[in-house]
Amino acid sequence: MYTQAQSVQSSSKEITLTFKLSEKGKPSYTVFYKNNPVILESFLGIKLKDGSDLASNFTLTDSKTATFNETWQPVLGEQANIINHYNELTLFLKQLVTGKKMNIVFRVFDEGVAFRYDFPQQENLNYFIISDEISEFNLAGNHKVFWMPGDFDSNEYIYNETLFSDINTEKIDLNNGIGVKSISGKYVVQSPLMMKSASNLYLNIFEAAVVNYPVMHLNADVTNFKLTSQLVPNAIGDKAYLQTPCHSPWRTIMVSDDARDIVSSKMILNLNEPSKIDDTSWIKPMKYVGIWWEMHVGKATWDYAGSQNAQNTTAQDLKPSGKHGATTENTKKYIDFAAKNGFDGVLVEGWNTGWEDWFGNWKEEVFDFVTPYPDFNIGEVTAYANEKGVKMIMHHETSGSVANYERHLDRAFDHMKKFSYPAVKTGYVGKIIPRGEFHDGQTMVNHFNFVVKRAADYKLMVNSHESSRPTGFSRTYPNYIAAEAARGNEFSAWSSGNPPMHETILPFTRLLGGPMDYTPGIFEIKMSHYDGAKKEQVHTTLAKQLALYVTMYSPLQMAADLPENYEKYPDAFQFIKDVAADWDESKYLEAEPGDYLTIVRKAKGTENWFLGAITDENARKSVIALDFLPKGKKFKAVIYEDAKDADWQKNPKAYKIRTIEVNSKSKINLSLAAGGGTAISFSLINK
Amino acid sequence: MYTQAQSVQSSSKEITLTFKLSEKGKPSYTVFYKNNPVILESFLGIKLKDGSDLASNFTLTDSKTATFNETWQPVLGEQANIINHYNELTLFLKQLVTGKKMNIVFRVFDEGVAFRYDFPQQENLNYFIISDEISEFNLAGNHKVFWMPGDFDSNEYIYNETLFSDINTEKIDLNNGIGVKSISGKYVVQSPLMMKSASNLYLNIFEAAVVNYPVMHLNADVTNFKLTSQLVPNAIGDKAYLQTPCHSPWRTIMVSDDARDIVSSKMILNLNEPSKIDDTSWIKPMKYVGIWWEMHVGKATWDYAGSQNAQNTTAQDLKPSGKHGATTENTKKYIDFAAKNGFDGVLVEGWNTGWEDWFGNWKEEVFDFVTPYPDFNIGEVTAYANEKGVKMIMHHETSGSVANYERHLDRAFDHMKKFSYPAVKTGYVGKIIPRGEFHDGQTMVNHFNFVVKRAADYKLMVNSHESSRPTGFSRTYPNYIAAEAARGNEFSAWSSGNPPMHETILPFTRLLGGPMDYTPGIFEIKMSHYDGAKKEQVHTTLAKQLALYVTMYSPLQMAADLPENYEKYPDAFQFIKDVAADWDESKYLEAEPGDYLTIVRKAKGTENWFLGAITDENARKSVIALDFLPKGKKFKAVIYEDAKDADWQKNPKAYKIRTIEVNSKSKINLSLAAGGGTAISFSLINK
Repeated sequence: MYTQAQSVQSSSKEITLTFKLSEKGKPSYTVFYKNNPVILESFLGIKLKDGSDLASNFTLTDSKTATFNETWQPVLGEQANIINHYNELTLFLKQLVTGKKMNIVFRVFDEGVAFRYDFPQQENLNYFIISDEISEFNLAGNHKVFWMPGDFDSNEYIYNETLFSDINTEKIDLNNGIGVKSISGKYVVQSPLMMKSASNLYLNIFEAAVVNYPVMHLNADVTNFKLTSQLVPNAIGDKAYLQTPCHSPWRTIMVSDDARDIVSSKMILNLNEPSKIDDTSWIKPMKYVGIWWEMHVGKATWDYAGSQNAQNTTAQDLKPSGKHGATTENTKKYIDFAAKNGFDGVLVEGWNTGWEDWFGNWKEEVFDFVTPYPDFNIGEVTAYANEKGVKMIMHHETSGSVANYERHLDRAFDHMKKFSYPAVKTGYVGKIIPRGEFHDGQTMVNHFNFVVKRAADYKLMVNSHESSRPTGFSRTYPNYIAAEAARGNEFSAWSSGNPPMHETILPFTRLLGGPMDYTPGIFEIKMSHYDGAKKEQVHTTLAKQLALYVTMYSPLQMAADLPENYEKYPDAFQFIKDVAADWDESKYLEAEPGDYLTIVRKAKGTENWFLGAITDENARKSVIALDFLPKGKKFKAVIYEDAKDADWQKNPKAYKIRTIEVNSKSKINLSLAAGGGTAISFSLINK
Repeated sequence: MYTQAQSVQSSSKEITLTFKLSEKGKPSYTVFYKNNPVILESFLGIKLKDGSDLASNFTLTDSKTATFNETWQPVLGEQANIINHYNELTLFLKQLVTGKKMNIVFRVFDEGVAFRYDFPQQENLNYFIISDEISEFNLAGNHKVFWMPGDFDSNEYIYNETLFSDINTEKIDLNNGIGVKSISGKYVVQSPLMMKSASNLYLNIFEAAVVNYPVMHLNADVTNFKLTSQLVPNAIGDKAYLQTPCHSPWRTIMVSDDARDIVSSKMILNLNEPSKIDDTSWIKPMKYVGIWWEMHVGKATWDYAGSQNAQNTTAQDLKPSGKHGATTENTKKYIDFAAKNGFDGVLVEGWNTGWEDWFGNWKEEVFDFVTPYPDFNIGEVTAYANEKGVKMIMHHETSGSVANYERHLDRAFDHMKKFSYPAVKTGYVGKIIPRGEFHDGQTMVNHFNFVVKRAADYKLMVNSHESSRPTGFSRTYPNYIAAEAARGNEFSAWSSGNPPMHETILPFTRLLGGPMDYTPGIFEIKMSHYDGAKKEQVHTTLAKQLALYVTMYSPLQMAADLPENYEKYPDAFQFIKDVAADWDESKYLEAEPGDYLTIVRKAKGTENWFLGAITDENARKSVIALDFLPKGKKFKAVIYEDAKDADWQKNPKAYKIRTIEVNSKSKINLSLAAGGGTAISFSLINK
């Protein structure tokens, strides 16, 4: 027996959301896609630390529907215009006994549903502490799931592709190169969670606009195929400290029978607040190179003095090991390379003191973010970069000591402005200080957002590594140009690495929340190149590395390999030099999570198009119609593809390049090797 | 059966320290005073989080003795020269099985013993986490003790005077006005702990140089009269995170048969590092008035807009309640008063936005430390103060949100420099954020020290309220001019207050660690002056309030009462105008903890002396010989004393003032009322 049922549909009429209140006043919702239930009745609510709840004994006092339809322009993005179109249903709930009020707001888009809890200003609820959120996602079957374990401190896992009933975090290989792990339970997984039903429906559960709230992981009931929100706790087990008026982040459920609707969705961005930065003229896309991969391959070190105990030694007294990467001289080499090849920026890691003894010991004061090593002359480097027209990218590794970073943040940003660095890459490798906090808790979510906001005060762009994964906050603060917050390319240099399917899943998961600094472009794929004893390799062909510049959207893109490696393959390198990082249009041509992805994009303000096609460990052929090209115009297509005998394991560097003339009626046959890809640049041929 | 006993004596030969190592390799010590044991055999050691300990299985590998004798000059102080004279014994210990090394260092002064644990740099011990320190203080009898409960968050208690066997924190009245309490156990008390034995020996247990370590409370074994160190934990129960080489703070035991030796001791300061500030010219004593007491008596408010919910309201939109104290106009009145009466500074509390909703809710972002209320024009105030030759004292209430304060600290100090404020009063009322931390844990000890260090970067002086109690760090950072860190005078305005004996104990406890901003000088003693319904009063006579300027040493002294109250008693007020805050010499004439105290001091760089004598709830008479005055010179003595019928309860404002001529052979009869005191100024009569 239910009362007070309410419904709202997407503008396409394909998705229907039904809200009900049970006899005991428990709110629940159901989601239908093309008239079939895809989320069965699922209860909603909040538990408070004082022992009470906002999950039952509610009465529906009112409800309201609304329609919203606007088009907005992101500062940087996959497309120049984004449509934000949804129907909204708000339920006004009140507990008659306690007098407490809570609203549940649903928004139904063409590709999915979002809801959140609103806590209006009221006499009976001011400050409150959330001990648990109990939002359910009751699935309609034993779907295929791409999951990683619910880890409060790391999202740098590969994805496990199993049936829902086979989710089990105790079965994963923990020898995976992740430095700090805090796996929270046998059946807890992370969101975004991508799924596919037996009837070929694609489902995705995620969240948007995580602000002043912890990250939501998901508790899987593997028998009943039900997910329940699992908020990340703080040092003393509390989840969130709130004051009315306030609201939770949006919980999102995307559903479609076409995987392309999910991977191309802008729902997460749409659920975030518009930009709070008025003048965004200083926010620019950047392609960059840097002193970074040479440390991952073992050619150089971040530290200046090896393993010497630097505890009581000043930088001037340390004896250089001779392997330090971030020298003035080496930096100038990268600046020269960037200038010659048209890159916007140069990142230098290991430029500042502290790296002799920085990791793994929960040490509070490691870096001061302003003191360079003796062999890195920041003034000289800056002058040289200015002269060459190249921007320097700052690096702030915090070693997880957020308390220390916040104490130094104004000084660190002042230092960047003094030396004209427009962007910073932050890092959070290590257990968090304040001790007891996790990377994904409310404290850290607030920290990551705080850094972005404070950077905006200084007109600085932020690329955060080891942060909680973005949930669209880059709409609100467009200077948050990229984040890592997933397993990046570097893991393949020194660990079991990323399997070929990894990059076919990320766009369905991590990338929904914002751009990723994945650092593609590795040409010397096997680590035996550097050290004959090494077995590690990037699980890719060379051509696939090119395709990633299109399939992994980011306005900040690194050409991650060493300059000397690019100089050996100038024809392939040409694609990286040409490809854009900011776009007018994006079209998702083919998509299947875990299998393949083909995207084509039009570079912002130009007539040039770039296509990227990737596959997993299976070779793949397909035919692409070029009907995205403007009619009646001729284009030169340069096709960078796997050679016939290419194979990510046996022959990863085998590629070929061909140039053909095409128009909107043309088709191109793609042939991707196992672990391979194809990249194509289309440039208008002037009549 | 003990082996390897070692001894060291004070230069006076009155104190002997004996170290032993038990058969099981457990270190212990014993303290003798005039050949009688005052600390019976007590074990020493550290427990580590990994389950191991540094408390047993030690072998003594070496030992070393040394003698140190120097005289140093504090920047500000009770005396121009301080003698630091001790004999030192270092025991080099090693656990043969683990290979771990630890040294115990003892220093024996004429008034007591200090020891600490040194953890040298070594292969087998680098980073470590202390889960417990087990330093014992095994007392020789059931002494009288002046104790307050071991509270991780507050030291603002009155002292309980009981036998050691009657220590019981469950018996104290918790309706005491303290906002945040975290009492840690039935038998845990705070240090400094002042005691008196049945044979009239005075003992004091405390610590010095608490740096990067939590505060030490003491666990009392009330049956065996033994105290054991109880370190304050962090959010997850750990005590201290250390890296070798490092050491614990000094644990101190003072002992004498003359109470004056304890109360005048400079041992705590001596155990701290010399000043790390080279140019100290900007560190100056300050007498000040301020907009503060009028809030405590209910005449004005810190907030601008009463209880309006300020959550979503900007300062400009708030409606003024009309009771706001920190207005430009009121501040000018205080500046005029300060200028007219020779005060150095004016404190203004409640000048900045946030006070409508600041306390009791563990709220992270309350104050930004730079935004004034609409009715406080900081530029205008600064200009006016400059014109009148008065310095403004900044106020930074953090509401316990240390994370927020640290984020804003550079901006807050920049703001002070911009408006020429030379000193800041900080406040920490509320539960600490990072949540789970306590006021007395390692994190907060580091914070308080950090603020002082960063203030030194800006040449700013710090007066911290609700901090952990000082342990002599003002020697190392002399810009740490004062702290509260004990129950101050304001409690008497709105709570059960401070009993008359309170100020006779503080110099034996809290003041050993550094100056206190006690805020004396209350002339309108009964709160019925402001509101006929009020029963609260300061537990004092007016004359005692004057004496406190001498007995409570601080280079930062407030004349806490309202200007209009001082204007009613200009003759008594003259003493506050005359008294110094920095001294060449101090002589402790009479002292009995909990009963009375008489001190005389020579004002720095002058021939003027000031005497303060106070008593507890009992009236008291004594005769003071003026042999501290230079021989053959005449002085005018102005004696501010209790009138015959004065009594702190019945007639607290009854005082009389007499002026006599004296020399070094004179004697003065002191007659102190119940809860009373006498203040005397001696000025040289020029021949």
